[in-house]
Amino acid sequence: MTESKGESYDPKTFQGLTFHDVTEKFRDGSDTPRDYLERCIETIAAREPAVKAFAALNEDGAREAADASTARWKNGRTLSAIDGMPVAIKDLLETKDMPTQMGCDAYEGNFPKRDNAAVWALRQAGAVVFGKTVTAELGGSHPGPTTNPYDPDRTPGGSSSGSGAAVAAGMVPTAIGTQVGGSIIRPAAFCGNVALKPSQGAINRGERQATSMSTHGVHANSIEDMWQVAIEIAARAGGDRGAMALAGPSTPPPAVKPARLIVLESDGWAVLDDASKSAFEILMESVQSQGIELLRRRNAASVEALEKAVEGAGDICNGITAWENHWALRNLIDEKPEGVSQRIKNTVAKAEAMTPEDYQLRLLQRAKAQAAHAQVGGIADAVVALACPGPAPLWPGDKPGEPLAPRPTGDAIYNYPSSMLFAPVVTVPLMSVGGLPVGLQVMGRPGEDARVTALARWLKDAIAPVSVD
Amino acid sequence: MTESKGESYDPKTFQGLTFHDVTEKFRDGSDTPRDYLERCIETIAAREPAVKAFAALNEDGAREAADASTARWKNGRTLSAIDGMPVAIKDLLETKDMPTQMGCDAYEGNFPKRDNAAVWALRQAGAVVFGKTVTAELGGSHPGPTTNPYDPDRTPGGSSSGSGAAVAAGMVPTAIGTQVGGSIIRPAAFCGNVALKPSQGAINRGERQATSMSTHGVHANSIEDMWQVAIEIAARAGGDRGAMALAGPSTPPPAVKPARLIVLESDGWAVLDDASKSAFEILMESVQSQGIELLRRRNAASVEALEKAVEGAGDICNGITAWENHWALRNLIDEKPEGVSQRIKNTVAKAEAMTPEDYQLRLLQRAKAQAAHAQVGGIADAVVALACPGPAPLWPGDKPGEPLAPRPTGDAIYNYPSSMLFAPVVTVPLMSVGGLPVGLQVMGRPGEDARVTALARWLKDAIAPVSVD
Repeated sequence: MTESKGESYDPKTFQGLTFHDVTEKFRDGSDTPRDYLERCIETIAAREPAVKAFAALNEDGAREAADASTARWKNGRTLSAIDGMPVAIKDLLETKDMPTQMGCDAYEGNFPKRDNAAVWALRQAGAVVFGKTVTAELGGSHPGPTTNPYDPDRTPGGSSSGSGAAVAAGMVPTAIGTQVGGSIIRPAAFCGNVALKPSQGAINRGERQATSMSTHGVHANSIEDMWQVAIEIAARAGGDRGAMALAGPSTPPPAVKPARLIVLESDGWAVLDDASKSAFEILMESVQSQGIELLRRRNAASVEALEKAVEGAGDICNGITAWENHWALRNLIDEKPEGVSQRIKNTVAKAEAMTPEDYQLRLLQRAKAQAAHAQVGGIADAVVALACPGPAPLWPGDKPGEPLAPRPTGDAIYNYPSSMLFAPVVTVPLMSVGGLPVGLQVMGRPGEDARVTALARWLKDAIAPVSVD
Repeated sequence: MTESKGESYDPKTFQGLTFHDVTEKFRDGSDTPRDYLERCIETIAAREPAVKAFAALNEDGAREAADASTARWKNGRTLSAIDGMPVAIKDLLETKDMPTQMGCDAYEGNFPKRDNAAVWALRQAGAVVFGKTVTAELGGSHPGPTTNPYDPDRTPGGSSSGSGAAVAAGMVPTAIGTQVGGSIIRPAAFCGNVALKPSQGAINRGERQATSMSTHGVHANSIEDMWQVAIEIAARAGGDRGAMALAGPSTPPPAVKPARLIVLESDGWAVLDDASKSAFEILMESVQSQGIELLRRRNAASVEALEKAVEGAGDICNGITAWENHWALRNLIDEKPEGVSQRIKNTVAKAEAMTPEDYQLRLLQRAKAQAAHAQVGGIADAVVALACPGPAPLWPGDKPGEPLAPRPTGDAIYNYPSSMLFAPVVTVPLMSVGGLPVGLQVMGRPGEDARVTALARWLKDAIAPVSVD
């Protein structure tokens, strides 16, 4: 149905760039972190002109870090399992050695000499901090230049646009993203990544504690790399202020087969295209054929209750986030009005029309949904759902004189529920529609990050991907 | 016992500068906000050379704001009950029109053109944002130049040193302070202020969300001004991300007589001087003589349980805060090593020796204390305790070549429990020891800010202050 203009994506054959499976060669000397890095740099040279995933690169610094790692592997004195792993950092996080411009003209040239706590932790673990990936402006919806690696006319999703695309294009094995509404899982799903959006607070956001529902997370091409990066950060920088850190094994959790899964349709179901719905239903049949019981609104009253609890999640999330950000954005707009997009200005205007009570009403709605999830979550091993409403949409760019397109980086409608629930989510690339990736997400209750990782790993290993035209 | 070198403090006769009782004159034209401001400026001219409460002043901006307010009072179009009130802002909060140097050399000249959300709210309410008050370095314990208005050889307390001293010296009727461990209530108690440290999250901290247990609060000379400032901010800027805003009436809660009070001795009891202990016991007898039942560890097992629950609160608070701040401080030290005090560097070194698990252990200890308070809090109307361990200590300054004094701004030992419990506290100046102020604090359970304000108001009105030599 959807026609891809780029290299077509086939989830059955796609082999992304991974890291966990090369370290044996680092140990025996048949490969090195420096050589690994050079291959990444070659891929970037080949693909970056079309994909435009990076806002900044520090090749010299990366080479230096890779050489140091090479020496550590040689000496058997590595700092962690991700020693030598090139990791790209979403350009919302501060990095000592690269500018942090946040996709926003007002921050052009912004270069604080600081490392975000997660970046600090990655360096402590020996990772090669390699570049800043393009973010939609300030983590919102106003898009940067990045294109979908499978079709340059389509969005990679956002706001972690560059992180999703760089991992998909094999430029880096992993990248850090951030999510408030749908900014990790949606681009990951549109780009065919594996990704973790952890429980709220589970990975230290460092200086970025300004909103009550944002998280750092990891884009990767394998469950192994995804988990390893997340747990190495948490082991060093812990969780957010006042929050428990990501909990789980220090190596990737082994696959666990689920016995029962809740299938969540949520608000996205009504806007889903037929091909994607069909891909999802074929996938669910395949899951069921493995003896896994599926609970859905049509056959389980408590699932219907959960569906009701997450109705309108998008409005709740967007209202909360707009309110929480609006003083900082007002200050920025007042200082540099020309440096901030009209999309951001429109969001601020909406927030400025809210009262503290409007905000608190949404907090209470969120708390109510969380309570429902806490109750219902226990009836199954996890929740599964589409990770995005079909494949990445076309993005022709704003047209002068015409109204702004509402969702240039795609719709986060399938991501608001887990964001609102503070719930851990792993997306795995188990579908393609028209030659473009579509993700399946596995969601647990807060704190169940390791469990959803184990379940997602089983699904990725045991269920044949579904391709629909 | 303690000899004061300044103008002696007598809680029976002290009349601080207030605002709520002059607005009637603004209405009838016999006084104006501009004239009120000019009187503040005169007091500053007279007392600032000794007290050194301000890090910055914007007299021109304040005069402009006061003139605008004067016009609004004349037209009957005031923005709030605090329209025209001069408010000083602790120099940790960003202000568009004044530098924010945070008592730290590394931030000398720092002048972001931004308003903290609470400052924004004050301006929206018509308040006259008037100056930046001295803070101990970055809100820690390394002191600034401010002296105690009742004795220039003594500390005003910290870290809200300038806010406490400016209000005590009649330079402004109210000032904004912030507290993580004891940084509002301790200086307020040492300076004879009334002050509110609200429930955790109840007043929006704006960009300052970096720690899990800091709050904005209000220093004043009356319960009326204290409450009015707090509720006007909350009505406009709400609470912290994810938190309910300060809840209560839009005008100061009327006095409410308590029936039963818990008396909390806590870790401070063991280090208390005899004179202060005596003043406190005389005060408690006076409270009891009004027919109020006092529950203490000696007569109530559940109070003993609460005492046990808050044992070691200082270590818990300091460990949590040191950990939460240490990435930001490490970045600062790396960038400007000469601009940060050895006290801060020592704290960072302690934090860098911690692991995420060390931090989480303290979070769990804090949660356990909160659970105990939630249970026990309901057996009485509130908790009362000393707000500081006796009068403000002498502070002769650091001596070159000698070890750093451990608590140059005094001991927060009586403040850690409420900080750890996320509990609202109001301190009222009901004692003096050796001619220096000592506060009594009233603490409720989280969310009971209006209730403790009403109880504190009754105590302030109905109980005769106690003076001990």
